[in-house]
Amino acid sequence: MKQIYVVGIGLIGGSLALDIKKLDKTVTVYGIDKNEVHLDEAISLGIIDEKAELKAIEKADLVILSIPVDACVNILSNVLDLISDHTLVVDVGSTKEAICEVIKEHPKRRNFLAMHPIAGTEFSGPKAAILGLFQNKTNIICEVEKTAFKLQEKALKLFANIGMRIRYMNPKAHDKHIAYVSHLSHISSFMLGKTVIEKEKNERDIFDMAGSGFASTVRLAKSSPDMWTPIFKQNKDNVIETLEEYIANLTHFKEMIKEDDFLAVFNEMKNTNHIKDILNGIN
Amino acid sequence: MKQIYVVGIGLIGGSLALDIKKLDKTVTVYGIDKNEVHLDEAISLGIIDEKAELKAIEKADLVILSIPVDACVNILSNVLDLISDHTLVVDVGSTKEAICEVIKEHPKRRNFLAMHPIAGTEFSGPKAAILGLFQNKTNIICEVEKTAFKLQEKALKLFANIGMRIRYMNPKAHDKHIAYVSHLSHISSFMLGKTVIEKEKNERDIFDMAGSGFASTVRLAKSSPDMWTPIFKQNKDNVIETLEEYIANLTHFKEMIKEDDFLAVFNEMKNTNHIKDILNGIN
Repeated sequence: MKQIYVVGIGLIGGSLALDIKKLDKTVTVYGIDKNEVHLDEAISLGIIDEKAELKAIEKADLVILSIPVDACVNILSNVLDLISDHTLVVDVGSTKEAICEVIKEHPKRRNFLAMHPIAGTEFSGPKAAILGLFQNKTNIICEVEKTAFKLQEKALKLFANIGMRIRYMNPKAHDKHIAYVSHLSHISSFMLGKTVIEKEKNERDIFDMAGSGFASTVRLAKSSPDMWTPIFKQNKDNVIETLEEYIANLTHFKEMIKEDDFLAVFNEMKNTNHIKDILNGIN
Repeated sequence: MKQIYVVGIGLIGGSLALDIKKLDKTVTVYGIDKNEVHLDEAISLGIIDEKAELKAIEKADLVILSIPVDACVNILSNVLDLISDHTLVVDVGSTKEAICEVIKEHPKRRNFLAMHPIAGTEFSGPKAAILGLFQNKTNIICEVEKTAFKLQEKALKLFANIGMRIRYMNPKAHDKHIAYVSHLSHISSFMLGKTVIEKEKNERDIFDMAGSGFASTVRLAKSSPDMWTPIFKQNKDNVIETLEEYIANLTHFKEMIKEDDFLAVFNEMKNTNHIKDILNGIN
């Protein structure tokens, strides 16, 4: 793979570009982005070699779509129309059902691989890109059987080289599970931030009293609304379901406190403590 | 201060002991704990020099009460009965109203300083103690005017030496604000953990799909129920209020998604993004 086009030079697209350039110095990475400032930053940070227009992707060996999930669904058919037969196109979005649906009948469906690398931070833009971000991170691949075998091979070799662990899932299961372990966390964090900001009009008070625990739980409230709004839209039903369960659990916890049933409060926390063992696997 | 008694050799008590011992090699730190294993660990880790019984605190220059807030409220009068006139007693609990109330008429009230160092991790026990934990951390002191001036001086000198920043607050305001920036975070984290665990019976799935964002938001769900149950009990009214506001915000967010009002969803997140600036002050 010598010609790589990254559409959307942000945290994920930029980090992939950095890893790819490090692996093979003969690769040329082209950046495509609506945001000219981001393109210039990406060049000066050594993330991309040159700016490009979308029509140039006919020459691409690999096209990475790392743009918000609504833009990705809108653009993918057009991208597949433009590429050559040997081009591999991947997306990196946090929802997989809509993207797989939109090109299921496309004549170049076999040039596309739907994936979701579980990696990132709360930051965005090219400055947020990190070399080695994907080391030991999970990459969820959906509908692998619908991608041409040679392009699968090409993709898997690249993912192995940048240190990703691969998991296969169908898009429906992906979107359901990810609502619990990612989308819900973002909403809980945003609403926690909102609740505290609303209450503490004098921000100096928050600043002084908040510790690392608060910082940890609201970290995701720094995330980009441009990226997250279309995710919640595309995964609406699953997100609503997780929110309803979360709200029910919070309401139940509040009722136990209200009724002075602190033995139940204790047990509730005790039973959740084994999240430790789960988290040990993540970090 | 040469003789320090730490009642409860865990994360906070142990970390204070480590800092104090580092500052002054001539100090002897005595540990008092119901848990013999913790005492032995604390000795082998160099956190305390010797085990002691509570009655020995009559010889203490400083007594640190770092036990769950209910135990602290139960024991404090007895501790004040036992100490000498020159002894300073401090607590480190996450609630301040009950503790200040219980000894307000005690003849040795002036020997007590109520404080809350905003520092820690989700871990507990002597192994969780960290040298330098309080460096640049806020220590909230309540009702400072009720502590004897000489003992205030002694305390403030120590806190300055271990790097704490001091803030003064009345106990009522402390308990109200801390419910927002600490207690609510713990509940949101525990219930997030519960919601995901309930749904994902096969833990392997969570493990593979969860990333650092999930880990960050549920980190506090590892916290000790022994420590947190009495905090929620003592701060019941404030905790219920914060939970009601949090639940209302989550419910509103869910309704916006349900009604496909994604412009409102976007704005809600955008308006919360400035949590960045607040968090920059914490980390």
